[in-house]
Amino acid sequence: MSRTLRRGDEVTGQVNDAVQAAVERAAAAGEAWRATPPAERATVLEGVSDALLKHAEELWPAAAEETRLPEARLRGEIARTAAQFRLFADVLRDGGWVEAVIDHPDPGATPPCPDVRRMNHPLGVVAVFAASNFPFAFSVAGGDTVSALAAGCPVVVKAHEGHPRTSDLTASVVRQALPDPDLLGLVHGFEAGAPLVKHPLVTAVGFTGSLAGGKAIQKLIDERPDPIPFYGELGSVNPVVVLSSADPAEVASGFAASLTLGVGQFCTNPGLVFVPAEGGFEQAVAEAVGATSGGPMLTDKIREGYLRASGRLAERLTVLASGGAVDGITPQVFAADLEAFADGLPELGEECFGPSAIVVRYRDPADLPAVLRRLPGSLTATVHAAGPEEARDLVPVLNRLAGRLIWNGWPTGVAVCWAMHHGGPWPASTAPAHTSVGAASIRRWTTPVAYQDWPADLLPPELRDDNPLGVPQRVDGRPRV
Amino acid sequence: MSRTLRRGDEVTGQVNDAVQAAVERAAAAGEAWRATPPAERATVLEGVSDALLKHAEELWPAAAEETRLPEARLRGEIARTAAQFRLFADVLRDGGWVEAVIDHPDPGATPPCPDVRRMNHPLGVVAVFAASNFPFAFSVAGGDTVSALAAGCPVVVKAHEGHPRTSDLTASVVRQALPDPDLLGLVHGFEAGAPLVKHPLVTAVGFTGSLAGGKAIQKLIDERPDPIPFYGELGSVNPVVVLSSADPAEVASGFAASLTLGVGQFCTNPGLVFVPAEGGFEQAVAEAVGATSGGPMLTDKIREGYLRASGRLAERLTVLASGGAVDGITPQVFAADLEAFADGLPELGEECFGPSAIVVRYRDPADLPAVLRRLPGSLTATVHAAGPEEARDLVPVLNRLAGRLIWNGWPTGVAVCWAMHHGGPWPASTAPAHTSVGAASIRRWTTPVAYQDWPADLLPPELRDDNPLGVPQRVDGRPRV
Repeated sequence: MSRTLRRGDEVTGQVNDAVQAAVERAAAAGEAWRATPPAERATVLEGVSDALLKHAEELWPAAAEETRLPEARLRGEIARTAAQFRLFADVLRDGGWVEAVIDHPDPGATPPCPDVRRMNHPLGVVAVFAASNFPFAFSVAGGDTVSALAAGCPVVVKAHEGHPRTSDLTASVVRQALPDPDLLGLVHGFEAGAPLVKHPLVTAVGFTGSLAGGKAIQKLIDERPDPIPFYGELGSVNPVVVLSSADPAEVASGFAASLTLGVGQFCTNPGLVFVPAEGGFEQAVAEAVGATSGGPMLTDKIREGYLRASGRLAERLTVLASGGAVDGITPQVFAADLEAFADGLPELGEECFGPSAIVVRYRDPADLPAVLRRLPGSLTATVHAAGPEEARDLVPVLNRLAGRLIWNGWPTGVAVCWAMHHGGPWPASTAPAHTSVGAASIRRWTTPVAYQDWPADLLPPELRDDNPLGVPQRVDGRPRV
Repeated sequence: MSRTLRRGDEVTGQVNDAVQAAVERAAAAGEAWRATPPAERATVLEGVSDALLKHAEELWPAAAEETRLPEARLRGEIARTAAQFRLFADVLRDGGWVEAVIDHPDPGATPPCPDVRRMNHPLGVVAVFAASNFPFAFSVAGGDTVSALAAGCPVVVKAHEGHPRTSDLTASVVRQALPDPDLLGLVHGFEAGAPLVKHPLVTAVGFTGSLAGGKAIQKLIDERPDPIPFYGELGSVNPVVVLSSADPAEVASGFAASLTLGVGQFCTNPGLVFVPAEGGFEQAVAEAVGATSGGPMLTDKIREGYLRASGRLAERLTVLASGGAVDGITPQVFAADLEAFADGLPELGEECFGPSAIVVRYRDPADLPAVLRRLPGSLTATVHAAGPEEARDLVPVLNRLAGRLIWNGWPTGVAVCWAMHHGGPWPASTAPAHTSVGAASIRRWTTPVAYQDWPADLLPPELRDDNPLGVPQRVDGRPRV
């Protein structure tokens, strides 16, 4: 794999050369890829899906060694990653992703309307910063990569330093299934980030990671002569509101499981739980969390970050319950009254990445909206209740706070489907109009082009009146049926 | 109009108070507006449309005095602005703008898919920076304002200092037609920009103006604790490629008219024209431009900017033709060989706002792509040719350079329709996935929310299985028919 740079390369010049080469190769390979009909790209994506499954036996052990995640979780994650490639094959065959719109001339309009036809086109080379916590689903072959490839964009991934070997192996598997291996570049090392973001041929950046990392990337983008779109997922506290009609035992067991899933290293980890002061919720949660245990974290940096952040919480709040320590990591749940919690904002509303949460007691659910409105944006918000009426007033608060609302469930786990939205107000997303998971995530890597009075012979097939590809079209303001 | 601040207010504290008040009032008024069913919002927009037409006799004279634009143009622009409100009424009644997607549960999916339903919701208060060059269509009641109001967002406009009285009058007309006048706030003065962009309740910014202005806004946004989306249109040179089969006389007359329309003060002004060295194109253009004349520009600042920028071009390039001077403003066309032009990039590719352009002579059309690829992003790119074959190789170059491709026409003038795209790579747009004109511009002011396993009683009607509003839905991956 001569075109990747190994971890440990300390010479910035070498890193820079590797980035330049990867981007240039990707751009060159991208010319044929963007011109490949979407149905053919779909077949390629299915081939990648098959290849990932076929190589699962090599992939998961590498990831297990590097991330300390268990086999079953990693096998499941490979299956999910492969399924993402299949979803985007479906997206390409459907054709709705190009958002074809045709307006025939209307000389009577104000102003008069010529023949105008618009559809989405691929942007160009996409830079992807892999995440630590999903070594497959949000890494080299993750959601950003597959959606960009589907759109017709070549990709250069900056590997996460937490799993370099898994990254190399994954890239190798994907490349072999692509018509041109250069469609997926891989670079290693912290120093690779800046030249990648600043490369003139890079047209957009995808990122899943920390607030600090996201801010650094935005700064690099602003320094470009031509700032490019930045799609970053930077953090989320995922508030859960438990209403008094919910069942304390069910809430407690579900919460404890969600909190400690993957040692709490999910961007959708439930970090804030609002419970009624009466009804035994707090005690049930304490018991359930007390029965959990920690585990090894993904990297030393993440481990240190968790210990530091949960230590800060311990200085300010009462510990409601702790799970068993494994590898020095203890799930911890803190407790606060609603008023004290509100007084501690914004600090108490910040994400603590790992198996820790704050249980916030409230006496009157009518006091919740004012506090919820002060929380930072989240990927998810959850309600637990026996029926809808009790929650009605919360909906218009929650749907401005988070990109996904969950009923009587838990936020960890993100379905990969057409309707999924994985985003939300900052810092959940740097671009709240867009999702990083699901069919609509392809839109991030596209740009519309309108063709005015354009000759039919030169139109993309998606914009022709005879619609040879059978894509969904909106014609003269109405969906074509 | 007590809630607006008059031009000339020098006290920053007062400006700041006015901004705070306008944003807070807009946010308060927005609560009922976002909860108003889209069909009712449509009726309101039609009322605004009627009001603008009804008050045209007061509006155009104010604008004529402040902008020096002629009556016919201003009357046309009011009609267009009113038509935009009607288009968005249609958009709301159609319902496709919410992009309703329903996935029923699929326990067999990888990972298993719960019931997930997604649609777009309004963001919140939108800050709009009005442009100078369209005192109606891109100002207080312009495309940003109407699309934001349609989405369910209240708006606070920072008036352009070039037409403060027109801005006040327009705001007054619109406010009287809104259910709550506070849905449209208006603030004046350069100092209003920063507190507006930084106000915690502002959720997105729309801007049409200069590169420097756009960069300043991006900087303010980056300084927010929660950076928000920025939709800016910052400049465009709008290249035109004339191929040898085109008719020199038609090209020349069309070009001269487009170049000098509105004294060249269109963001879609054709600033670069590539013509064959042979065939008499250059001479025809010289003659046609020689017969044009200048006119008063919108503001002293714009006038000075034009004189400075065209003066700089005159130092570097041969003057091919000049029109007649009116009010000290002369249309000017410069000439350069393709090689010399390429050597002068990137400077020669920068927009010169006003009736000036560079005619670039080429000998071999095969030399064009390499130069076109070095141009900055544009709102439009145009081809003139007798038939499609000659242009085939240019399409994949042009559709990465500009957001709208025009065949045998001229870029000035933007139709307001479903298929329009008014955007492009930076600096044409800060967000190349989005348009600032046409039906799709509403998307900028929305954010998707996914509802997972959500009770039907609490779902928005657009996401219900019985689809009571009859909106276009995608159900289980297929458009519902």
